[in-house]
Amino acid sequence: MVCSSVTRCFFDYSTPKILVIQSKKVGAIYRLGQALVIAYIVGYVCILKKGYQDTDSVISSVTTKVKGLALTNTTDLGLRVWDEADYIVPPQEENSFFVLTNLNITPNQTQSRCAENPGPETSCVSARDCKRGFHDSRRNGVQTGRCVNFSETEKTCEVYAWCPLEKDNNPPKPPMLAEAENFTVLIKNSIQFPKFKFNKRNILSHVNSTYLSKCVFNRKTDPDCPIFRLGDIVSEGNEDFQTMAVQGGVMGVQIRWDCDLDLSEKSCVPQYTFRRLDNKDPDNVALGYNFRFAKYFNNAEGQEIRTLIKGYGIRFDVMVFGTAGKFNIIPTLLNIGAGLALLGLVNVVCDCISLTCMTKKHYYREQKYTYVNDYEILSKDEP
Amino acid sequence: MVCSSVTRCFFDYSTPKILVIQSKKVGAIYRLGQALVIAYIVGYVCILKKGYQDTDSVISSVTTKVKGLALTNTTDLGLRVWDEADYIVPPQEENSFFVLTNLNITPNQTQSRCAENPGPETSCVSARDCKRGFHDSRRNGVQTGRCVNFSETEKTCEVYAWCPLEKDNNPPKPPMLAEAENFTVLIKNSIQFPKFKFNKRNILSHVNSTYLSKCVFNRKTDPDCPIFRLGDIVSEGNEDFQTMAVQGGVMGVQIRWDCDLDLSEKSCVPQYTFRRLDNKDPDNVALGYNFRFAKYFNNAEGQEIRTLIKGYGIRFDVMVFGTAGKFNIIPTLLNIGAGLALLGLVNVVCDCISLTCMTKKHYYREQKYTYVNDYEILSKDEP
Amino acid sequence: MVCSSVTRCFFDYSTPKILVIQSKKVGAIYRLGQALVIAYIVGYVCILKKGYQDTDSVISSVTTKVKGLALTNTTDLGLRVWDEADYIVPPQEENSFFVLTNLNITPNQTQSRCAENPGPETSCVSARDCKRGFHDSRRNGVQTGRCVNFSETEKTCEVYAWCPLEKDNNPPKPPMLAEAENFTVLIKNSIQFPKFKFNKRNILSHVNSTYLSKCVFNRKTDPDCPIFRLGDIVSEGNEDFQTMAVQGGVMGVQIRWDCDLDLSEKSCVPQYTFRRLDNKDPDNVALGYNFRFAKYFNNAEGQEIRTLIKGYGIRFDVMVFGTAGKFNIIPTLLNIGAGLALLGLVNVVCDCISLTCMTKKHYYREQKYTYVNDYEILSKDEP
Repeated sequence: MVCSSVTRCFFDYSTPKILVIQSKKVGAIYRLGQALVIAYIVGYVCILKKGYQDTDSVISSVTTKVKGLALTNTTDLGLRVWDEADYIVPPQEENSFFVLTNLNITPNQTQSRCAENPGPETSCVSARDCKRGFHDSRRNGVQTGRCVNFSETEKTCEVYAWCPLEKDNNPPKPPMLAEAENFTVLIKNSIQFPKFKFNKRNILSHVNSTYLSKCVFNRKTDPDCPIFRLGDIVSEGNEDFQTMAVQGGVMGVQIRWDCDLDLSEKSCVPQYTFRRLDNKDPDNVALGYNFRFAKYFNNAEGQEIRTLIKGYGIRFDVMVFGTAGKFNIIPTLLNIGAGLALLGLVNVVCDCISLTCMTKKHYYREQKYTYVNDYEILSKDEP
Repeated sequence: MVCSSVTRCFFDYSTPKILVIQSKKVGAIYRLGQALVIAYIVGYVCILKKGYQDTDSVISSVTTKVKGLALTNTTDLGLRVWDEADYIVPPQEENSFFVLTNLNITPNQTQSRCAENPGPETSCVSARDCKRGFHDSRRNGVQTGRCVNFSETEKTCEVYAWCPLEKDNNPPKPPMLAEAENFTVLIKNSIQFPKFKFNKRNILSHVNSTYLSKCVFNRKTDPDCPIFRLGDIVSEGNEDFQTMAVQGGVMGVQIRWDCDLDLSEKSCVPQYTFRRLDNKDPDNVALGYNFRFAKYFNNAEGQEIRTLIKGYGIRFDVMVFGTAGKFNIIPTLLNIGAGLALLGLVNVVCDCISLTCMTKKHYYREQKYTYVNDYEILSKDEP
Repeated sequence: MVCSSVTRCFFDYSTPKILVIQSKKVGAIYRLGQALVIAYIVGYVCILKKGYQDTDSVISSVTTKVKGLALTNTTDLGLRVWDEADYIVPPQEENSFFVLTNLNITPNQTQSRCAENPGPETSCVSARDCKRGFHDSRRNGVQTGRCVNFSETEKTCEVYAWCPLEKDNNPPKPPMLAEAENFTVLIKNSIQFPKFKFNKRNILSHVNSTYLSKCVFNRKTDPDCPIFRLGDIVSEGNEDFQTMAVQGGVMGVQIRWDCDLDLSEKSCVPQYTFRRLDNKDPDNVALGYNFRFAKYFNNAEGQEIRTLIKGYGIRFDVMVFGTAGKFNIIPTLLNIGAGLALLGLVNVVCDCISLTCMTKKHYYREQKYTYVNDYEILSKDEP
């Protein structure tokens, strides 16, 4: 008996009782509201923003290969040809490559004593002005405590340092390796969306090696060519290569992979954009990009000497980012569920209108609401 | 009076009036629909996909240390032992390490004049064929304008370059540092999930230093050992080390951290997978992975000379990715809310069935719907 | 006729019929429940967690420039000044920089024969103990098969290697470049939130170059200065620089960009934190951080010699992460929709209470539910 009653209840279907107000005004608002919500769900969430997709971020590996020759002719170095082993420092990096475009060279430095470069804090009249053993980051060496002639007219504190000291010069202008503008770089990028087990390379399958051996990237004519002329990268970032090459700088080579994996694999292609990353404002401290490195030698007496190079150049950071989307039931239902709930908002609005603004509002209320009162019984129950 | 009426209204509880249809057919469909939706919410969203968790992406730091010795015996170099200071270039990188496996060496280059390597565009008959000052990325130097003997039978344009020129050879086969297959690398990986302030290292706490000094990673017997034999990495990526070592290549060492931080910290362990990242298709341009670097010397006369090395090798990119999940009330309620809204869909379906397909559908409609008509009044109101 | 009926139906507004229970008890629970849900939606989701925002992860580029001088005085090297070209190896990296703090130096190595360092597996009595051609990662060279005097009292197998061998010493203590504690580093960080096309640098617009030329980061007095003293970085990570400098280590310089792009751009500022990334537990294998690198020379006879340096030092990994949020209609409506659906839960709870626990529960049920029975008709219909 109980069992059958429970079974009966279990198979009861409960559906709310509905009051249908046959009014063109409210009806129109009601349908319009529903239409808006559904259009939002279908159009905006599902089609434009692909709310039915699960997403994953890209992981990436980049290799680069720069090609080009530059010729310089300076009094220090004489006539000199520069190839990639000379101007790429360090010879390989992970997501980045540095191309030397300008340099201050200080050859044949040894650990010895020499006069500090003149400046407000290094000039001296006598040894009293020079504190033995003192050094800080604005000096080139450790003070020996002596005051020596820097030039015929100027005396500075002597330092123990890599002598001769680097001259505090501005970088040469025009830049020494101005020809770097015509260098080319092949960027190979292999990406993966681990959640979807999807791999791809930026050398697309329809690109053959004959084409690759000759092509240069051009947004209009050769958008799939992964070989870039350095000058083009800089000018697409709205910079002037020759100006940038003097002080150096950092360029971002941005590769965006936005892939809809519900579509054909062929529609998943990289988008290249270029942007200057450092601040080119000349007021800026540590303007541009440069770093010092040295080549070490032993001289005939076995003493260590070095050639110090303050290298200015452009660092190209290859930044790979992007998202892949693929149909997944969870975000789909999440969006549909939330959308359905929004449909409920339409009812709230229409109730407000029909029960407060319409002529027959009292009649509608009467029909919609049934009041049951708790108070009499409560008052009876109460002592 | 108004106040008390507002208070009364405020404490009114509004609940929809329900029509209960005691029909096994519709009831069964109704309960089945509800069961499906609830099963989806509980089973799929909450348990399988952990919809109750907030997620965060990993940030990571990697250090590597390669060990191993290789012996080569060539006519150029004689007998030579290679250790990590020789074959790791550059000596340290951030998430990556490069192991030299093969090389073309061109010793004692100086800035001077020599005959260009022969080729369709560099061969010449007389000086007319050689344009003084011309250079592009396919040439090794700047043409001097002279036509000189490359060999007894062949004449090419003279170039100013690092001479003697690198010979345009294929890399040696078998690879010179074939023994690199047995080198081992210790990969130390420290990760963080910043949102959850959770840190961990890939050297797990139960791994002691005695074990670490001897172990080698093996997916079955030593899955927690962070020391990898290079040959194993390559063969797990379904490649042959000796073949890959000739032209070089890029291997991905992927460390996946998928952690459920609601569970014990011990269950958060790294998963290692290995995959070749570059294209091994022999048709490919710039096959494999190589780069040129140089060692600079001063000769007895103080002239700069260099040893150019075209180094082929395998770059191992350590790619760390993963997600951590931890209980959070927002995604939980988001999913529950969306799920509840989906329950409303079941009612829509059952209404359709009971009000259109069932025998007593007219009776149900009568009971469910109450119609109030706006039109008479409207027509009266209208002028 | 049909058309007009459809039009009429189309403009019908359906609203559920409501039973209003005028009970303070249930009403209070009902309103409390609603208030909780709305407070959760508005307060927690919208205000605290900014559920109305779409989010994007940061992409970043980092350049660093270290400044400082160190003076060492050892028997091997004599008095020596170290500048950044000496102690930064390699001279530039992408998101990281390595500062040499300690070193073991082995000068004038040549490819030749010498006695292996003594140890359990390399000691020998006669040539029988030394296997010609044998080498593994624990040996420094390839055994020649001879047993030679290592010292007057000890014999070891002879190896062909870079001789003299590196001595198996512990790193010097105190560290040789202890002065590295006072070096400073300028970290330039350029970030982008690609989804919102928002770029920013860590050198904020109100920071001028006069300030930058003098300032040093201090969490209290100079929180916007991007110049960090290395000693401060380490001590903020609760480590002792001088201790860490002996064996080396890895420090994380974490830059967090959590930006609310609905607010002014000025409120989007980087947060710096510092953390040691490697394990400092002395039990650990491969404690600290070191790597070997070599400087190559040619001696007077044209033979290649090298200076091997086992460099210990601190690698600073600059880790940039963070999220930007900006108002977007989709997550807003998603959260509102899910919240509305949760409001439905309050009804379920109040129904339970009013229909099972209250005195007048039978009366309420009668009013709320209308039962229609399918069974009689079904039994009539069935044959």
